[in-house]
Amino acid sequence: MAHKSPPETSEQQPGRSGSSPVFSKRHLLGIADLNQYEIVDLLDRAERMIPVSRQERKTLPTLSGKTQINLFFEPSTRTQGSFEIAGKRLGALVVNMSVRTSSVTKGETLIDTASTLNAMQPDVLVVRHSAAGAVELLSQKVGCSVINAGDGAHEHPTQALLDALTIRQHKGRISGLTVAICGDIANSRVARSNLLLLNALNVRTRVVAPKTLLPKGIEDMAAEVFTDMHEGLKDADVVMMLRLQHERFAGRMIPSVREYYHFYGLDAEKLAVARPDAIVMHPGPMNRGVEIDPSIADGPRSVITDQVEMGVAVRMAVLDALLPAGGTK
Amino acid sequence: MAHKSPPETSEQQPGRSGSSPVFSKRHLLGIADLNQYEIVDLLDRAERMIPVSRQERKTLPTLSGKTQINLFFEPSTRTQGSFEIAGKRLGALVVNMSVRTSSVTKGETLIDTASTLNAMQPDVLVVRHSAAGAVELLSQKVGCSVINAGDGAHEHPTQALLDALTIRQHKGRISGLTVAICGDIANSRVARSNLLLLNALNVRTRVVAPKTLLPKGIEDMAAEVFTDMHEGLKDADVVMMLRLQHERFAGRMIPSVREYYHFYGLDAEKLAVARPDAIVMHPGPMNRGVEIDPSIADGPRSVITDQVEMGVAVRMAVLDALLPAGGTK
Amino acid sequence: MAHKSPPETSEQQPGRSGSSPVFSKRHLLGIADLNQYEIVDLLDRAERMIPVSRQERKTLPTLSGKTQINLFFEPSTRTQGSFEIAGKRLGALVVNMSVRTSSVTKGETLIDTASTLNAMQPDVLVVRHSAAGAVELLSQKVGCSVINAGDGAHEHPTQALLDALTIRQHKGRISGLTVAICGDIANSRVARSNLLLLNALNVRTRVVAPKTLLPKGIEDMAAEVFTDMHEGLKDADVVMMLRLQHERFAGRMIPSVREYYHFYGLDAEKLAVARPDAIVMHPGPMNRGVEIDPSIADGPRSVITDQVEMGVAVRMAVLDALLPAGGTK
Repeated sequence: MAHKSPPETSEQQPGRSGSSPVFSKRHLLGIADLNQYEIVDLLDRAERMIPVSRQERKTLPTLSGKTQINLFFEPSTRTQGSFEIAGKRLGALVVNMSVRTSSVTKGETLIDTASTLNAMQPDVLVVRHSAAGAVELLSQKVGCSVINAGDGAHEHPTQALLDALTIRQHKGRISGLTVAICGDIANSRVARSNLLLLNALNVRTRVVAPKTLLPKGIEDMAAEVFTDMHEGLKDADVVMMLRLQHERFAGRMIPSVREYYHFYGLDAEKLAVARPDAIVMHPGPMNRGVEIDPSIADGPRSVITDQVEMGVAVRMAVLDALLPAGGTK
Repeated sequence: MAHKSPPETSEQQPGRSGSSPVFSKRHLLGIADLNQYEIVDLLDRAERMIPVSRQERKTLPTLSGKTQINLFFEPSTRTQGSFEIAGKRLGALVVNMSVRTSSVTKGETLIDTASTLNAMQPDVLVVRHSAAGAVELLSQKVGCSVINAGDGAHEHPTQALLDALTIRQHKGRISGLTVAICGDIANSRVARSNLLLLNALNVRTRVVAPKTLLPKGIEDMAAEVFTDMHEGLKDADVVMMLRLQHERFAGRMIPSVREYYHFYGLDAEKLAVARPDAIVMHPGPMNRGVEIDPSIADGPRSVITDQVEMGVAVRMAVLDALLPAGGTK
Repeated sequence: MAHKSPPETSEQQPGRSGSSPVFSKRHLLGIADLNQYEIVDLLDRAERMIPVSRQERKTLPTLSGKTQINLFFEPSTRTQGSFEIAGKRLGALVVNMSVRTSSVTKGETLIDTASTLNAMQPDVLVVRHSAAGAVELLSQKVGCSVINAGDGAHEHPTQALLDALTIRQHKGRISGLTVAICGDIANSRVARSNLLLLNALNVRTRVVAPKTLLPKGIEDMAAEVFTDMHEGLKDADVVMMLRLQHERFAGRMIPSVREYYHFYGLDAEKLAVARPDAIVMHPGPMNRGVEIDPSIADGPRSVITDQVEMGVAVRMAVLDALLPAGGTK
């Protein structure tokens, strides 16, 4: 993988003003749809949102009068809450619709649900669904912007953006770093979106996992593939742990959870081979003692709560980029 | 049934200003409580709300500082969401209370729930309940306005109003049309509220259903009663399909779902006997392939998503009519 | 127990202005943390909130731009709704997070949930949890204010404050009254918080319960302990009934529900021994016919719905006291 230097902040791109004219898409369905300029533009926007997301400055009224519907077919306290707070801090009317117990149980199809909500004239739908591709399908049936908040094992673009923003905040840059993503790569939309984003920014991407948790064709997605943590973490700048969905493996899993922790759980001994200033990330919620040792999760190199904080800023930036202030539908 | 011409828009009624002084009720419990003038007044108000409901104009601040509680004893994504969006676009503080898993499971009575919420000084309660009459009972115990969002098989007045508004938008008028309501008439609050409204506006109302799904006394509610779809739809201007609650009939149903679709499901062949410009309506959520063929549901004569859109405008109008701007409780 | 007279309103304390400088705590975890001056200060503030809570005056913008997260590990329609309305009437962005079906089911710990939400930079977390002490533990891990909305059998401080405000509204004072708390004292956070508050204000506190529902050491918490209702209610100014969590006793309970009602259910005959102007309170939701007779619950001496109304005012006051207007985090 060639490593040319991409622009990482708007300052590096003469002629781009603070009004961020680059982003002109209607939806955010996946990192795969973004080029490096669009990614960097969103990160720049998110950085400018941090003071508002921290409430150091007043809420911004850029989404005043706009309607945001959070449509979660899978429950998620943290992601839905993050999008809700982001929208409300921008002045949007935010409506949550959990569709587990309601219309869907009556047999309504995904598309009918989309058409129905679309007819209520929202400006943006934030959608999580258990099926890969469901959010894109839905986006084709509506007249508003759609943000993918996670679709099956496919993509979770705002997670990758918040991870990148966290890295940039801690490392001052993204390009040229070595990032190791460790764990259940095969089933993780977080891994997938992160690999797409980091590759676009010319990061040296590594994946580390037992063979059973590596997807086919992973060699085309990551610069380096490891099955041994000590090799995979060696000199890494960023160690990104993934949640083990061990409830999905009940009884069938090889290695067992105990073995998994022994070989792939991040502890002080394994982390010692990474760079001395390496940061540790996790998208949450964590399985302490499964993929990560509590001492690492709560240790000085963990930036896990920073990721959550950057999540609000990134989601504000994405909403702001997709829904220009003052614009009517 | 005599067909004198009622006024359909305020323009036809000299002396009525845009401030719509006609509506002076505190609650909206059912269409049965409204005369034709009040119905037309609400439709006029809703028509003026359409640009706001579409966010072409700014949100209206008419409910600013007012508190709307959505009290749903039965879950309903679409109806609750529609009321929530309507209230928020008018500036209300909207609080959702789903009462399946909470106090009611602890044995609290309907009336105690009503008294409790009333003591929190809301301006309006939007209530859905599985028992006919529950919403009216509740309205007698509170000091605020109450809107019936569906009570058992009794009434669903905002559904009938949004159906009427959709008809008026597409046909330019309501009075004098022939409207065929098809399906499970016996168990449908939608059918009941629509028949009351359409009769009040001197529509030629027809019902079409197997005998087992016709309620006693239906002859007094509809101008014409049919058990054959081809006869019932002949020359109809509007074909209104009802959701078949087939989960309620499990095993007991005669005819079966397959037979039901054969005889009563709306397909191109049956629709061909209606007027060439007939519109097709459905309150949703649809059972595709049960009461309606997907090609019709998604076809050019379907106004089903328009109904959802009119729903927000109608609910804004009802909230605005019941809670005059600036008025304190 | 000595009965010196505490100050009950700010008017009695020269030098205290309407700006209520007394309250300087960051959290409200329990009445046990408050002295009598702080309790009276909160009651004074709540009294000033009543017109706003009744919407006789406009909503106050004191929490404008601030974020309130309601984090309920146990569902509660009325308490969550009361806090939500209180926050919204003060202009806060309120986000509800019910954590039954989401992250917690994935095994996330209480502390990780707290850290995650804290990273979203809320100004206040309102927390209910089934375990005594869980809210205090959580408060140690976050940078924002925390309000205990009920933790196991430990404390429910806003309930005690709203009960005190209700008493003051009806009796003109609190100190010197005789208050009898009746029912399941052993398992009740409401009883515990009320005893702490009433003792701090030099009320003559009584508890009345069968021996099996009296906790160890109750003699240290209440001035007088009774197992007979007629003795316990004699000349009481306030009769405070508790909810019997009889679903927790299924089959094991001695006495039975029927016997319980006979001996401890509040009816006209037992209430007759209290003072003629005694008021009857219940934190809700009531078990009519178990701990209270419907004729008493709905009778002229019941102030049960007033308690709910005062609840909104008290929660507005607590939010306002913990989050000074204009202050940034």
